[in-house]
Amino acid sequence: MPRTAIALNCTLKRSPEPSSTDLMCSQLGEELRSHGVELEVVRIADHDVAPGVSADEGEGDGWPPIRERILDADIVVIATPIWLGNPSSTCRRVLERLDAFLSETDDEGRMVTFGKVGVVLTVGNEDGAHAVAGQVYQALADVGFTVPANGQAYWVGEAMGSTDYRDLDGTPDKVRQTLKTVATNAAHLASILDASPYPAAS
Amino acid sequence: MPRTAIALNCTLKRSPEPSSTDLMCSQLGEELRSHGVELEVVRIADHDVAPGVSADEGEGDGWPPIRERILDADIVVIATPIWLGNPSSTCRRVLERLDAFLSETDDEGRMVTFGKVGVVLTVGNEDGAHAVAGQVYQALADVGFTVPANGQAYWVGEAMGSTDYRDLDGTPDKVRQTLKTVATNAAHLASILDASPYPAAS
Amino acid sequence: MPRTAIALNCTLKRSPEPSSTDLMCSQLGEELRSHGVELEVVRIADHDVAPGVSADEGEGDGWPPIRERILDADIVVIATPIWLGNPSSTCRRVLERLDAFLSETDDEGRMVTFGKVGVVLTVGNEDGAHAVAGQVYQALADVGFTVPANGQAYWVGEAMGSTDYRDLDGTPDKVRQTLKTVATNAAHLASILDASPYPAAS
Amino acid sequence: MPRTAIALNCTLKRSPEPSSTDLMCSQLGEELRSHGVELEVVRIADHDVAPGVSADEGEGDGWPPIRERILDADIVVIATPIWLGNPSSTCRRVLERLDAFLSETDDEGRMVTFGKVGVVLTVGNEDGAHAVAGQVYQALADVGFTVPANGQAYWVGEAMGSTDYRDLDGTPDKVRQTLKTVATNAAHLASILDASPYPAAS
Repeated sequence: MPRTAIALNCTLKRSPEPSSTDLMCSQLGEELRSHGVELEVVRIADHDVAPGVSADEGEGDGWPPIRERILDADIVVIATPIWLGNPSSTCRRVLERLDAFLSETDDEGRMVTFGKVGVVLTVGNEDGAHAVAGQVYQALADVGFTVPANGQAYWVGEAMGSTDYRDLDGTPDKVRQTLKTVATNAAHLASILDASPYPAAS
Repeated sequence: MPRTAIALNCTLKRSPEPSSTDLMCSQLGEELRSHGVELEVVRIADHDVAPGVSADEGEGDGWPPIRERILDADIVVIATPIWLGNPSSTCRRVLERLDAFLSETDDEGRMVTFGKVGVVLTVGNEDGAHAVAGQVYQALADVGFTVPANGQAYWVGEAMGSTDYRDLDGTPDKVRQTLKTVATNAAHLASILDASPYPAAS
Repeated sequence: MPRTAIALNCTLKRSPEPSSTDLMCSQLGEELRSHGVELEVVRIADHDVAPGVSADEGEGDGWPPIRERILDADIVVIATPIWLGNPSSTCRRVLERLDAFLSETDDEGRMVTFGKVGVVLTVGNEDGAHAVAGQVYQALADVGFTVPANGQAYWVGEAMGSTDYRDLDGTPDKVRQTLKTVATNAAHLASILDASPYPAAS
Repeated sequence: MPRTAIALNCTLKRSPEPSSTDLMCSQLGEELRSHGVELEVVRIADHDVAPGVSADEGEGDGWPPIRERILDADIVVIATPIWLGNPSSTCRRVLERLDAFLSETDDEGRMVTFGKVGVVLTVGNEDGAHAVAGQVYQALADVGFTVPANGQAYWVGEAMGSTDYRDLDGTPDKVRQTLKTVATNAAHLASILDASPYPAAS
């Protein structure tokens, strides 16, 4: 059965402005495809995602349709640039909206996200990728996602650098290799969790 | 088949000083037992774990036997108190020693930890549990562990409080419930990863 | 000479929804007043602060007038609720906008913020205040603010709690005391930095 | 009057092993000297600093003499390498020991550290400097230090890099420039805080 994945690109920029985060999403998409997984990329900045921590913040809120696509996906990719050493404000907003899953449980107390796999993509001019991973993993695990071994691919330049990932002369080998690992592990984990869902806590 | 788990208690205090972290380890142990998993608890402060980032730092280093027991376990529990809003220095030392797994890969590039599940227990007088989860999840995923949905149980008191977890009048219901979820999810995930190991990245 | 302070309330909620963060801002305002400092509170959610990292993101951007008031103030208070153990997305957006100060330097290379004091207020149902302090202090120091001793006041409830700060039966003594210290130290530090500005680096 | 500074080098390695952190300490020392400040560097790994959170953990504890030198200094430099995106375990141990200052207050409730300035030096093969700054600033401000504008100098290489700072072909200009700023601002701030100490909170 084909698996589906959704990447939430948390760049601060609206389309069609070029986004390094978008480039890394595409690269992960290629890797996932070789495992039979289709990756859909949603640029959050193009939708009016309202501030809040509920499933639907009412009129004009762009989140509900994105939320539906997250619920349909087996793998959720949080893709974010780094600003001041941290995930973008747009990424934090996405995590806040995911917080609503905490109160959506089935008859046996399991969150609707149980069984879904969460991974992280991070790009920045410099420094902050490990801090991003920590924050995003914590949010993902809190709201019911499972994080595979080596669940993050990232690139950042040297300290105080200003080069963009999309302006590099080709993708560094280590990034390529990590993207392969993230895709392989996410696809495998989603597959076995689908075949054997988490039981109710007892 | 019985699964095995090891908890690394990262309290700053040596035995037999009482440790709130130890109490939460025991409570998780009870929950894991109901899933057929035996939990062994190792108090790091009782062993002379040397500073460093290799598998063996030489004479007098207490890490190598602990490392062996980690390699034998299906589930690894990082259990830490909170100091100044962060994991203990002992916890950071344990994570630094786990860093050596980054260079121990099999013929197909998989870390020796692939297939193992990592979870977190955290206790403090006040504030810091989410930051601990972030740091520990990031380290665990980096060095090859898989983190289950809701992979942390924790307790902290009100802001600037000074009550110890082991001095509470009974364990709060929410903590009990979370311990059940952590145990259920960790045991399940370890079981399906054992049956279906991560393939080599491709 | 009277000193001025501005608090940026980073709650996710628009006025007139009640905000615990707002309550703590008012309380700090009272303390600052006793040191001759007037505190103005701006609720960021009431303004359309655009995503971005420049001083002015163009048409419809609510940031430029706020930025002017920051430049007029001697003390800047970043006041934020906690969501998933971290500052709100609105707070991260404010920090991103402050990032523009990095490129606004005087003839001798000093940022326009040099001499201003930055402090932090944090409220949450539970856990995350130390992580908030870390992130906000780092951003403030990076963009040119000076952080006084004991530069944060905060309140959070017990683990997994759901009580709001504004629903407490009175303000805890330790919070009152910390607010006094934050106000005293911020006012003093702003005063001496005004009398003796940082020299150009040499 | 000459001011004094102490750098706590939190490398995991004992002397005489070369330390990149040590190199950056020396470089800051040169800059501080031009402001009339003598910097003493203490390599923590050479002393048996015991785990704990008190001023003196008893027999064999190497902390008490270091603590005395901290109390004698006007400026305290926390200098740490990065491991797994975070300050070293040795750095966390130092921060835990500084925690004892929380309970050492004068007749008017001021910590013994009030008036001292704290800054951060950070070196790593890759990624983590902003997270280090956040953690260390938070600890420093909590225990009574004041953090100057631009209170950190750091260097890290490109993502997943393995170059050491001390093996670079010369110190990058931006690092040199930041070291100058850190030294200038720390010396100035210590000077004005010495002339005008924080008053008691009121």
